[in-house]
Amino acid sequence: MPLPEITVHYKDPHSYPSGIAFLDEQYVSMEQAKISVLDYGFLHSDATYDVAHVWKGAFFRLDLHLERFFSSLEKLHMNVPYDRDEITEILHNCVALSGHRDAYVEFICTRGNSPSFSRDPRDAINRFMVFAIPFGSVANKDQMARGLHAAISDRVRIPTSSVDPTIKNYHWLDLVQGIYDAYDKQAETAILLNENGDIAEGPGFNVFAVKDGRVRTPGHGVLQGITRRTVFDLCAELDLSCRETQISPEELSQADEVFISSTAGGVMPITRLNGTSVGAGVLGPIFEKIKKMYWDKHSDPQWSLPIRYSSSA
Amino acid sequence: MPLPEITVHYKDPHSYPSGIAFLDEQYVSMEQAKISVLDYGFLHSDATYDVAHVWKGAFFRLDLHLERFFSSLEKLHMNVPYDRDEITEILHNCVALSGHRDAYVEFICTRGNSPSFSRDPRDAINRFMVFAIPFGSVANKDQMARGLHAAISDRVRIPTSSVDPTIKNYHWLDLVQGIYDAYDKQAETAILLNENGDIAEGPGFNVFAVKDGRVRTPGHGVLQGITRRTVFDLCAELDLSCRETQISPEELSQADEVFISSTAGGVMPITRLNGTSVGAGVLGPIFEKIKKMYWDKHSDPQWSLPIRYSSSA
Repeated sequence: MPLPEITVHYKDPHSYPSGIAFLDEQYVSMEQAKISVLDYGFLHSDATYDVAHVWKGAFFRLDLHLERFFSSLEKLHMNVPYDRDEITEILHNCVALSGHRDAYVEFICTRGNSPSFSRDPRDAINRFMVFAIPFGSVANKDQMARGLHAAISDRVRIPTSSVDPTIKNYHWLDLVQGIYDAYDKQAETAILLNENGDIAEGPGFNVFAVKDGRVRTPGHGVLQGITRRTVFDLCAELDLSCRETQISPEELSQADEVFISSTAGGVMPITRLNGTSVGAGVLGPIFEKIKKMYWDKHSDPQWSLPIRYSSSA
Repeated sequence: MPLPEITVHYKDPHSYPSGIAFLDEQYVSMEQAKISVLDYGFLHSDATYDVAHVWKGAFFRLDLHLERFFSSLEKLHMNVPYDRDEITEILHNCVALSGHRDAYVEFICTRGNSPSFSRDPRDAINRFMVFAIPFGSVANKDQMARGLHAAISDRVRIPTSSVDPTIKNYHWLDLVQGIYDAYDKQAETAILLNENGDIAEGPGFNVFAVKDGRVRTPGHGVLQGITRRTVFDLCAELDLSCRETQISPEELSQADEVFISSTAGGVMPITRLNGTSVGAGVLGPIFEKIKKMYWDKHSDPQWSLPIRYSSSA
């Protein structure tokens, strides 16, 4: 039996969303936004990233995302050859070139590889890349209107003793398996526990419980989300009590309101937990207040950075 | 300030090892072995893989790697459009086309993406890929001769309650941080603990302790390595006791011999732990016996599958 031919020019049969990526000093279409299968960012999930969003032509709180990204880099012993201003310019250019008014903008640093393909991570040349694609949300329009249905998984979010959750990372298999567990329970998304059996977080979001007018969110074993941080800031402006605390699955189930926060969608309601209504089973008044202020703040110059979509603008 | 130009044809400035990859029905050079940054195999490390090796022109125990790969796929709700025989043929072709007599052959299934870029993993079309590059080893020649220097990290390997370690996966940030901890202690590699404080595994390898002629390895929270399994099989042939058991850090430090197992290098000695000699501080007699038999077995037809390097052969 003859050996197959080697294909000299690989043909990509897949489709991609519209958008612009930056890698190796080049701005390219999403079809070309690829990494080597040998990059340790893939082979060891040895990478960190951040996601900022653009809404109505402006970045929202980009400074906080940049701050967290540089903190994650340091914790992983990684370096990028750009400072904050340079990264801001690259992110801006990806969005401007994409033309997207509402965009999901991810910036990534992977361990990369060493020129000699050494296994020593200190020898690797870290790689920086960015992509800007259409804005996405954890909850779709219907779910935003009626509230998401979630299941509390008995799967434990990867604990802090293994992976520092303040480093934004791609270790999601626990979350993905939690999603499948949730589907088995006729729910739409999952909330995982921390190693003590208390509520941790879900796939791409932090969790909030409202009880007797007070807003609470887990403090241990969770990503320090920028939207989570924004909820704290908004609660302060709204004169609402908002604090980190342990939340047991029972406490979450007995909350008056439950909502989640993510750059992908902002604040989003959960109205069913484990097949049972949360509170009255409808969007709660405190959630509605926070949500309104969250979107209003997108036009506040203090929290937004406008995109110049054309060179002449 | 004008916006930058979009690059129509991305130019890749990086170098790659010699080898052949398979993706989307095409056999390509390693320069072209890439995945989209949007593939959930990257963005969520939602992928599984296996690594087989070729030594002196033949696969070693490929059937066991295939068995584990298909088991991992099932646990992750993933599918590939090939059966075992078809995958065997693809792996074979990658090696034959690469020309490598000693090769490291990785086969991967990623979650992929859905055509609509839905966040629901059930909508994604899983992707299968393979690459064959030159054989690599955890321990270099010098380390094989004198033994590796390892440090026991106080970092906890991602526990089974979060990610099932029998699914071979890319969640390595705990291992990578363990390596950096080891470097800080002037060691060359790290051994991580399980959530009970006992020995788990290291970056890419299982750990064995020999005490009073008996071989022991952790059973909880570790990858069921194929080389680990081979050590059990070899010990049976050598009439040595080999069993799974808890091993505390103290027990490992007091072992007569310590060695590790990995497809990347076979069995490899550890002669220093936390700056102190293991046993006599030299390669142990039981390790040497197992290592000799391990390499001898590579020419046993029962455990090997020869590569046909040319169509006429």
